[in-house]
Amino acid sequence: MKHVRVGIVGFGTVGRATADIIAKHASLIERRSGVKLVVTAVCRRKPIPEAEAPEGARITTGWRELLDAPDVDVIVETMGGVDHSLQLLRGALEHGKPVVTANKKLLAEHGDELFALAVAKNLPIGFEASVAGGIPILRVIHESTAGDRLIALHGILNGTSNYILTQMESRSIDFDQALREAQLAGYAEADPTFDIDGQDARDKLCILARMAFGGRLDVNRIPTHGIRHVRSVDIRSAARLDRTIRLVASAEHSAHGLDLSVRPWMVSRRSMLAKVEDVNNAVFLVGDRLGTQMFYGRGAGGDATGAAVVSDLVEIARDLAAGRLSAKNVVGFLESRELELAPEPKPAGWYLRLTVNDEPGIIARVAEVLARERMNIDSVQQEPHSPKERLSLFFTVEPVSEPTIRRAVETINDFPFMVEPVLLLRME
Amino acid sequence: MKHVRVGIVGFGTVGRATADIIAKHASLIERRSGVKLVVTAVCRRKPIPEAEAPEGARITTGWRELLDAPDVDVIVETMGGVDHSLQLLRGALEHGKPVVTANKKLLAEHGDELFALAVAKNLPIGFEASVAGGIPILRVIHESTAGDRLIALHGILNGTSNYILTQMESRSIDFDQALREAQLAGYAEADPTFDIDGQDARDKLCILARMAFGGRLDVNRIPTHGIRHVRSVDIRSAARLDRTIRLVASAEHSAHGLDLSVRPWMVSRRSMLAKVEDVNNAVFLVGDRLGTQMFYGRGAGGDATGAAVVSDLVEIARDLAAGRLSAKNVVGFLESRELELAPEPKPAGWYLRLTVNDEPGIIARVAEVLARERMNIDSVQQEPHSPKERLSLFFTVEPVSEPTIRRAVETINDFPFMVEPVLLLRME
Repeated sequence: MKHVRVGIVGFGTVGRATADIIAKHASLIERRSGVKLVVTAVCRRKPIPEAEAPEGARITTGWRELLDAPDVDVIVETMGGVDHSLQLLRGALEHGKPVVTANKKLLAEHGDELFALAVAKNLPIGFEASVAGGIPILRVIHESTAGDRLIALHGILNGTSNYILTQMESRSIDFDQALREAQLAGYAEADPTFDIDGQDARDKLCILARMAFGGRLDVNRIPTHGIRHVRSVDIRSAARLDRTIRLVASAEHSAHGLDLSVRPWMVSRRSMLAKVEDVNNAVFLVGDRLGTQMFYGRGAGGDATGAAVVSDLVEIARDLAAGRLSAKNVVGFLESRELELAPEPKPAGWYLRLTVNDEPGIIARVAEVLARERMNIDSVQQEPHSPKERLSLFFTVEPVSEPTIRRAVETINDFPFMVEPVLLLRME
Repeated sequence: MKHVRVGIVGFGTVGRATADIIAKHASLIERRSGVKLVVTAVCRRKPIPEAEAPEGARITTGWRELLDAPDVDVIVETMGGVDHSLQLLRGALEHGKPVVTANKKLLAEHGDELFALAVAKNLPIGFEASVAGGIPILRVIHESTAGDRLIALHGILNGTSNYILTQMESRSIDFDQALREAQLAGYAEADPTFDIDGQDARDKLCILARMAFGGRLDVNRIPTHGIRHVRSVDIRSAARLDRTIRLVASAEHSAHGLDLSVRPWMVSRRSMLAKVEDVNNAVFLVGDRLGTQMFYGRGAGGDATGAAVVSDLVEIARDLAAGRLSAKNVVGFLESRELELAPEPKPAGWYLRLTVNDEPGIIARVAEVLARERMNIDSVQQEPHSPKERLSLFFTVEPVSEPTIRRAVETINDFPFMVEPVLLLRME
């Protein structure tokens, strides 16, 4: 029986769950894979009480010493952040050690360098845990759709935003309260910007799109809108249209290139997107032959992320034992071509919420702006019982291009009766 | 560039789709995997017109000659049936050739022998296409949940049954009409027994359960009930309870062993099971750490099945090119222990439909039988406007064990007012 010795750097939720799963499922892992995983070292800046450390593991505070430690075969990075973790992955690969990480920010920003290094060293980087937690979406894209051409992918990739949106809907609470509760429940950081403004979903979309469509992609080129400005009036308005709101990361092929975005969508309540509730994630893949596939599960949390880390460790351990480590899973990242983005996303229906200081003629003036851009109005609503000085008006319009709707929104935003800018959501 | 030469045996829907995908996606496959797949031989009992054969492939009518053909590296079996395909797989492995098959019946019945042979020869058998068409569920179980202990799995695994049930619901048609239409659309065989009586789902469940829970399992031990007796009155009755009907294959761990069955369930319309419509399939996995995951997609059809076959071919071709073919994916099948089945499934709620020749006192007599077995009635309905000599009555009862409900059903079936036996469905 081959022992594969694991060093874990960072010992927060994910690090602990990883160590715990390795300990508790040791015999299951052995039986299935023929290798025994053992945590031999744990590294954390703040010292760890002896009692909390995995049995038999030594504890260190400096990650550098794991790089050439003879008792560590694989390094798991769970520190987060970009500076130290970049140095750690670089150092590990340079010292001939495979690595596993859940750090999507690191990979979205420095994937090119790290994957090139992995290939140069012929070593794997396991990063299944970096996107959609426990959902094995990267393996699915890499292996199972190997014989198919992907046309589109859509995902609910940020558990925090999804939790906030579903709580706002199911309990009729407003955004601020839902966010506070998410923070108390440990689903949102003290500074929630990264989750609620869409950057977390954007980083994950970057990784998914590169794997699915094969090419380089600057994460900053993905148009990103979060859910910060969604209010309970919008949830109620969606409900009246038999819809709900989801933060959707999407990538679609068109004749002109790839149409990428992260933004809130108003989706049918009967759609599968609407069924994804709380902190769950889902990814929809559309293949030329396979049609639409959906993969659903827990998107975050120590257990799901830890289980994904361990699935990578098992694969690496198997290959290590068989003497066949390789960088096989990073193909999509190594293509030198740049993914070509569509200059203009394809037309969509839109939802507009206006917050106005009521006066006669508002609907007429807004309708005139929309008419001037040749848009067809699909529905108009007014929030019942709202104060005259802060009245919510909702319009949905038939599919038009994004530049067209944005031009109209800019004109509307300039009207003196507008209390705050228009909220714009894409209709599914 | 390494060429991997493929021989396809059987040239119906799946065989053709496989050849077509290999031809159309050749450059994509090359780019992703570094190998070139080429179909060099096609074998079919009935001769194939030259024009329909893949370019450059020779055509034969006898599969035996592919076994030692020097121009065939991998054999794809798409004949179906058990006799010839068993001989083909045996012969191929004995001649040192890896194989890919979509034949669940073959694997459910002869998996033990074939996988033992594969291990003895250290050769892979690709069988992703045998369960849930294009959904890569076997890979997910094998690789991605490697670090987690599975507790339960549920699946909608038979596209034909699901098509019939969703057509009955959406278009208010009866079972016979829906079946006829499924046959015309090519979704059901001339003899539909295997699909509608649940054996197809049972064979797939057998493969899934063996992979997920690791052990041997005689497919005939799985209690199997199909949808043949479901009528439009049951669909309407379900709708009044805000439910619908799905044929569910399930495997659940309990303290007493594994609880396995294939049977129609009455599920909430808001559940994800209900969202699986037409010929689609879905598999739900419940893991100790990963929680509930769902995998959804096309369950059948040439394109989805062909794409799954090609995903296996790509993996085998990669390993062949790297000189590392192995039987790594059959671990779950090789455990010598028998999966322990629970002597009695765990209690569930039940739906009973009685078709009676109306007379006074029927509800009282049925209620008395249920009371004698200490069952609580949850709801009683009577189908409106039905003829007195063929009246439909529906009961739902709170959770009781299956032997208890079956005893009650036997007593009820003996009543003189019963026109036909009770239909029993499990409540989700």
